Amino acid sequence: MHNIYLDYSNIMTDVIGDKHGITSKELESFKATYLKAHHKLVKQRDSDFMFFNLPTFKDDLDEIKKTAGFIRDKFENVVLLGIGGSALGPFSIFKALMHPYYNNLSAEKRRGPKFYVMDNVDPDYIEQLEDVIDFTKTAFLVITKSGSTAETISSFMYMLGIMKDKYDLNPGNHFFFITDPKKGKLRELAFEWQVKTLSIPPEVGGRFSVLTPVGLLPAAILGIDIEEMLDGAAKMDNASFKEDVLNSPAYMFAIIHWLLLKKGKPIHVLFPYANSLYSIADWFSQLWAESLGKKTDLDNNEVFAGPTPVKTLGATDQHSQVQLYVEGPFDKVFTFMEVEYFNKKAEITGKLPFEDFQYLENTNMETLLNTEKKATEIALTENNRPNLTIKIPKVTPYTVGQLFYLFELATAFAGSLMNINPYDQPGVEHGKIATYALMGRKGYEDKKEEILKNADKSNKYIVK
Amino acid sequence: MHNIYLDYSNIMTDVIGDKHGITSKELESFKATYLKAHHKLVKQRDSDFMFFNLPTFKDDLDEIKKTAGFIRDKFENVVLLGIGGSALGPFSIFKALMHPYYNNLSAEKRRGPKFYVMDNVDPDYIEQLEDVIDFTKTAFLVITKSGSTAETISSFMYMLGIMKDKYDLNPGNHFFFITDPKKGKLRELAFEWQVKTLSIPPEVGGRFSVLTPVGLLPAAILGIDIEEMLDGAAKMDNASFKEDVLNSPAYMFAIIHWLLLKKGKPIHVLFPYANSLYSIADWFSQLWAESLGKKTDLDNNEVFAGPTPVKTLGATDQHSQVQLYVEGPFDKVFTFMEVEYFNKKAEITGKLPFEDFQYLENTNMETLLNTEKKATEIALTENNRPNLTIKIPKVTPYTVGQLFYLFELATAFAGSLMNINPYDQPGVEHGKIATYALMGRKGYEDKKEEILKNADKSNKYIVK
Repeated sequence: MHNIYLDYSNIMTDVIGDKHGITSKELESFKATYLKAHHKLVKQRDSDFMFFNLPTFKDDLDEIKKTAGFIRDKFENVVLLGIGGSALGPFSIFKALMHPYYNNLSAEKRRGPKFYVMDNVDPDYIEQLEDVIDFTKTAFLVITKSGSTAETISSFMYMLGIMKDKYDLNPGNHFFFITDPKKGKLRELAFEWQVKTLSIPPEVGGRFSVLTPVGLLPAAILGIDIEEMLDGAAKMDNASFKEDVLNSPAYMFAIIHWLLLKKGKPIHVLFPYANSLYSIADWFSQLWAESLGKKTDLDNNEVFAGPTPVKTLGATDQHSQVQLYVEGPFDKVFTFMEVEYFNKKAEITGKLPFEDFQYLENTNMETLLNTEKKATEIALTENNRPNLTIKIPKVTPYTVGQLFYLFELATAFAGSLMNINPYDQPGVEHGKIATYALMGRKGYEDKKEEILKNADKSNKYIVK
Repeated sequence: MHNIYLDYSNIMTDVIGDKHGITSKELESFKATYLKAHHKLVKQRDSDFMFFNLPTFKDDLDEIKKTAGFIRDKFENVVLLGIGGSALGPFSIFKALMHPYYNNLSAEKRRGPKFYVMDNVDPDYIEQLEDVIDFTKTAFLVITKSGSTAETISSFMYMLGIMKDKYDLNPGNHFFFITDPKKGKLRELAFEWQVKTLSIPPEVGGRFSVLTPVGLLPAAILGIDIEEMLDGAAKMDNASFKEDVLNSPAYMFAIIHWLLLKKGKPIHVLFPYANSLYSIADWFSQLWAESLGKKTDLDNNEVFAGPTPVKTLGATDQHSQVQLYVEGPFDKVFTFMEVEYFNKKAEITGKLPFEDFQYLENTNMETLLNTEKKATEIALTENNRPNLTIKIPKVTPYTVGQLFYLFELATAFAGSLMNINPYDQPGVEHGKIATYALMGRKGYEDKKEEILKNADKSNKYIVK
């Protein structure tokens, strides 16, 4: 089996220079802090069923596989209705492990249902889906842990309206739910309408839920080996969840970013050199931003903490962002994700009648892409920009499982190092409340009045 | 015709507070600097044929339309080979103005060729394209201004190999070039092989080239009204290119970001509330990052300047980034892009048996999405996070043309304010040279030796 690893040579002072690097001594000097953080996670792990427990939790695997098999056989299309953690995880699995043009393949080549993730309430995006798929042959996966996420519920109500009014179909035959095992309106509805429903463990937050049915059911529907994915996560758990923090890939990822954050580098760039992994960078962006972006620490001090994740695609963004990365402010840490072997090599057999292009003859895209990665790494390093590389022998369910777990554990650990709560998201409430108020939801009348009173303050400064 | 406008109320101190806002007095106090910057652009505009001149330059429109008509009629698929400015512009036009699931539509509904943008040398992404389209019915647009961009030329050589070896097709019938009018290898080849070739004006840089054949030919192939798009750009030119800088939307966009950059807000978030505009945020990211990210200013001082652009999609990323935006560091400026009318409304006709969800009944996604935008705006403003809104009545070729020109002019103006050259990209060379060296290109032997000598420094710090 393939194992991923972390190479952090280019953040050390002996490579990157004193001003922007880290010394071995510095790394060692915070050992007490690291151990404290680790022991905190040990305690969390022992007291609740959190994300730590997912790689080896296989109780619901049979049910997931059975449901997946049923959906895969019966439907031509699968449409996921979810947002945030309920969409980013499954979508990143889809992009990492399926054919890059999956929905455009013929049914024979595809050998599974088409797959769409509806993670926005954009009216064109929602309404025009019907132009490309037959709703009578479609399964809808409604995923919301709370059972009341406005975007997901409204998308559900929209699809429900179409299915009933237009096609006279029984929702119980087309909708599948993934939600809390006991609480919430979606769970109530599941009982009432007899909708097949899978559960998200209550103590696993949305952004940590990719290894629950949220990610596993869509993966299994697509024919992905979900046990291999869990085994990969378990492998990373073994390699990372340990007192020997400086030899833990997940902990080292967190430690490096924490130390460099303290040195004035708050922008954390995830830089995969593979189209298939770009959506994992998107998934990571939620995990890192929402977990670590916090106003108050655990002692209730106002800290306004949090690095800003940025996703960048190699080689594409060499022609977009690398100018800034090489010459701009020293405010960034870069993590490359490098794939050693792709599924294809894309051998270049064509020739052009110019000596200038001979260096591109008789090579392949795999070699070229990885050479460009190496070249960008050299360019950043020569310009004293700290960077590390997650080396991935091949993108498989096993290595993708490792990646998910590495980033989740790193996030939890970084939260501990920063002395903040990485599991909540209090700041999201502001916008939710304003939405309820403006949409006229009962109980939010006062907020609405307050908003309207402030409204005349804005719209004053306009240029046309 | 619809006109876009800029609302910057929420960056002013009377709305957002003293600490993070700008006063009217402050805005006025830099008038001499603004005027100097404007006059510099006037001089540039008068002396060279740069992007300023594109909206009213219609000399090559007939040729573009004729070529587009030929390709549209003759081919089932169009594959663009390009990277950076040669890909981001055309792709953002495609996503903004075509059906959201365009390539999945049936030929009757589509009424034009399928469209793929190959902007990476990812081997799977390249090789597996052949699984979904018939290359014998495909036109390839090879776009590189210099005529020698490694990624584009290698993709071209790859496709050439397939077309010759596998299908025995004459490249002159399937390839179309867009490059410099006189210089470069692609131009040489165009003469030799008799390939239909359109020109990019020599003084228009890649990231400013969307309103040249780079963007206009693909747009016309897709059936988009390119004259309307140019008229939109001309309209914005009229509204923005003027001495009355505080009433210029493009200049105000630049001024606000420049002032807030000086106040410690180097992260510039472009936040469209519309899936169709997300790729314009990608296009903008290149424009802003590559133009303003510079090591030296025009007086040759080391400045390591440059804001970091971040693209965020509403409402989707409310469940991913907004926690950080509301509670994290005060290091960001947000620009919403709000669309008043979408093509569809997506009326919600379904109902659920819960009072909690009544607020979502009998509404539509257009209303919900724009309410969420307003709610996020309120949440950011209440938390003293400066934000502005570009209001777009409807996404049409005319308003998209306005948007392109607004951002291009804003970028040129911001470059002047920052006293840097916004038109070059010297930092990209480092990586290019390292790629040539590692790929064994003639003339780069010394660099290769140097790289290999340094190689043993890295790969020392690895965790598995």
